[in-house]
Amino acid sequence: MTRPLSIAVAGLGTVGAGVLTLLRDNAELIAARAGRPIIVTAVAARDRNRDRGVSLEGLRWYEDPVAMAAEARADVVVELIGGSDGPARHAVEAALNAGRPVVTANKALLALHGAALAQKAEAAGVTLAFEAAVAGGIPAIKALREGLAANRIGRVTGILNGTCNYILTCMRDQKREFGDVLAEAQRLGYAEADPSFDIDGVDAAHKLAILAALAFGRPVEFDAVHVEGIRNITALDIALAEELGFRIKLLGIAQQEEAGVAARVHPCMVPASHPIARVDGVFNAVVAEGDFVGRVVLEGRGAGAGPTASAVVADLIDIARERHTPVWGADHAALSAVPALPMASHHGAYYLRLMVLDRPGVIADVTGVLRDHGISLESMIQRGRAPGEAVPVVLTTHGCQEAAMRDALKRIAALEAVLEPPALIRIETL
Amino acid sequence: MTRPLSIAVAGLGTVGAGVLTLLRDNAELIAARAGRPIIVTAVAARDRNRDRGVSLEGLRWYEDPVAMAAEARADVVVELIGGSDGPARHAVEAALNAGRPVVTANKALLALHGAALAQKAEAAGVTLAFEAAVAGGIPAIKALREGLAANRIGRVTGILNGTCNYILTCMRDQKREFGDVLAEAQRLGYAEADPSFDIDGVDAAHKLAILAALAFGRPVEFDAVHVEGIRNITALDIALAEELGFRIKLLGIAQQEEAGVAARVHPCMVPASHPIARVDGVFNAVVAEGDFVGRVVLEGRGAGAGPTASAVVADLIDIARERHTPVWGADHAALSAVPALPMASHHGAYYLRLMVLDRPGVIADVTGVLRDHGISLESMIQRGRAPGEAVPVVLTTHGCQEAAMRDALKRIAALEAVLEPPALIRIETL
Repeated sequence: MTRPLSIAVAGLGTVGAGVLTLLRDNAELIAARAGRPIIVTAVAARDRNRDRGVSLEGLRWYEDPVAMAAEARADVVVELIGGSDGPARHAVEAALNAGRPVVTANKALLALHGAALAQKAEAAGVTLAFEAAVAGGIPAIKALREGLAANRIGRVTGILNGTCNYILTCMRDQKREFGDVLAEAQRLGYAEADPSFDIDGVDAAHKLAILAALAFGRPVEFDAVHVEGIRNITALDIALAEELGFRIKLLGIAQQEEAGVAARVHPCMVPASHPIARVDGVFNAVVAEGDFVGRVVLEGRGAGAGPTASAVVADLIDIARERHTPVWGADHAALSAVPALPMASHHGAYYLRLMVLDRPGVIADVTGVLRDHGISLESMIQRGRAPGEAVPVVLTTHGCQEAAMRDALKRIAALEAVLEPPALIRIETL
Repeated sequence: MTRPLSIAVAGLGTVGAGVLTLLRDNAELIAARAGRPIIVTAVAARDRNRDRGVSLEGLRWYEDPVAMAAEARADVVVELIGGSDGPARHAVEAALNAGRPVVTANKALLALHGAALAQKAEAAGVTLAFEAAVAGGIPAIKALREGLAANRIGRVTGILNGTCNYILTCMRDQKREFGDVLAEAQRLGYAEADPSFDIDGVDAAHKLAILAALAFGRPVEFDAVHVEGIRNITALDIALAEELGFRIKLLGIAQQEEAGVAARVHPCMVPASHPIARVDGVFNAVVAEGDFVGRVVLEGRGAGAGPTASAVVADLIDIARERHTPVWGADHAALSAVPALPMASHHGAYYLRLMVLDRPGVIADVTGVLRDHGISLESMIQRGRAPGEAVPVVLTTHGCQEAAMRDALKRIAALEAVLEPPALIRIETL
């Protein structure tokens, strides 16, 4: 058997401990598939004495992950610190500068600095692997970048944040409000104490930016992703969605259009019959549509020590076998330069829910504004009657321009009979 | 850019023409992802003059695929002839003997001769790739063999034959009988004139044998797969399944058990809420369960020129990039030698539907036989009353041994009041 592959692990949180556990528990099987043993020789973390449920005996200990990445006599550096900057970024840069392959689970780092890091890896002629950065244990990176590599991908869609999907699933199943479910998710450890990264869509947007880069063969561009989270989703909208045959999901959608690539993360109404509508709880899903393969759906656990470790070690096995793939699927010189499209140019259908005074003429005012902006109605529902009080009115539109809808919305929100900020959710027929 | 990868294609049927079309249509994108152009230099087929919708100009033409595989100055031989023996097998052997990598879509060949071919490829130090052999365009081979490589796989389950899934879906949606739907599928081209390969489960068993080899890291062993098809499924059983909260699917299931590996293809009752229950029509699905990753579900088109070509060209891109993986995920010496388990030792729950004379004492006789064989009942339904005539009786059991159930079934079938051969369908809770 060939020489073992030695690795230095930076960061020993949940995921780091999971990687060490997996490499220990399945060592024999991993050696068979990798063609040689994969052994940890060095680790870097802040607290040496914390019990991580896995032995660190015989491993070289570093307090400074950057020093480890630069100097450790390891074949590969595994970065599991997290965060788009600081030690994670410096450790990855140090490893690449030293000509050492890197495996990372860090979506924020990839989304924000991936373009530069990919060029650094290419210049050094080493692998920068990140299967664990998107959709946890689902081999989505490998599927898009290798399995479907022969296809022109038209669209990639994903449920990319388990916390949001869990909250939306609970809200629907238990008919509860967002704040209530979020508080419970925090108590149960499914949501962070500061949940904004998840629920405002930022985490999903990091992952979508990476998927879009792979799908369309272009350098990652996080700033081009339109981002909205799920804070404003109400139990009422979820119930109304069901009535209309839809489910509300936080989706990331990246699409190749004539003029360029559009990437957006926001709550969507999706047909209840679409496979992605039935991906519930903490599960993630990625749907890729290719010109020859058609629609491929991948579903699995998007987070947690086990699934993330599974993805990290898959990358290590690739490196042990010397299976190399350029970061965005092609060398820098062969990447596409199609522009990113702004959200204002998005074209789609909308769900609009208003709380209006139940009095004659209100609907006429609202529909008049839509008409003025060239927006054509598909349906209108007014549930219940309560003369002189607030009642919900739901409008769904045919396809129209986002910019026109935003202008219309401003005027509608300003109508005297419209009592709350309108709820706007995009309808995706997929 | 590096030297192009030249390929010789044996077999220009639907899939062969699809591969040529894909290589032509997406040539630029494929070259970027492969790191170099992939060009066809030679083809072998019987009829030179048939219109295949793609130009063969400038390609060296062979009548004999074996001669082409042995002598063509191509980097890779692509075998798309089909069939477990004859020219397909000889062409693949000739290519491997000549030290040439092979890409094939041929599940029958792999299932029956894959163990020997894998050793031949390993001895020659070349790739034998077959992503297209299982589940069409779904990158299932890559997912199992690379993406989930760090996991001990407990079970792999698949809807592996689109024809069967299409027929079962139509039977359920349209409440029609098997023979009727099959005849229509044949008219529409969804089923072959001789459909036995598909509907008797043989095609699915070929694919399951391959998946089992990959999942459990052992040489393929087709003879160890228990095979039953869907000929005996009736509209009545499908309706009764719905009533019990199940769907009937033809599944391939390979499972690691304490004593060895069990692999079986047969109609199953699966909970309507399980993701695999909702994979309808010609779609295929593969579900893998790993000890660290949990459950991963892959879904997509399992057949057709486009999806199959997508998988074939993905393999070619891997070869162009020099990404090599041993046939069963590990070198021959590192493969597992766990034994295959016979179906008689299967343990599971059963659905049993009898047509019995509606008269007192019949149920007592039937349940008495089950008791005698130590089989415990979970439920019993007798629908309708028609004294002196045939009525359906449905029994579901708790888990029991297949051998005991078969013995009991023989005695039940011999009861005077049991008017037709009993229908037996295994219940899978998955």
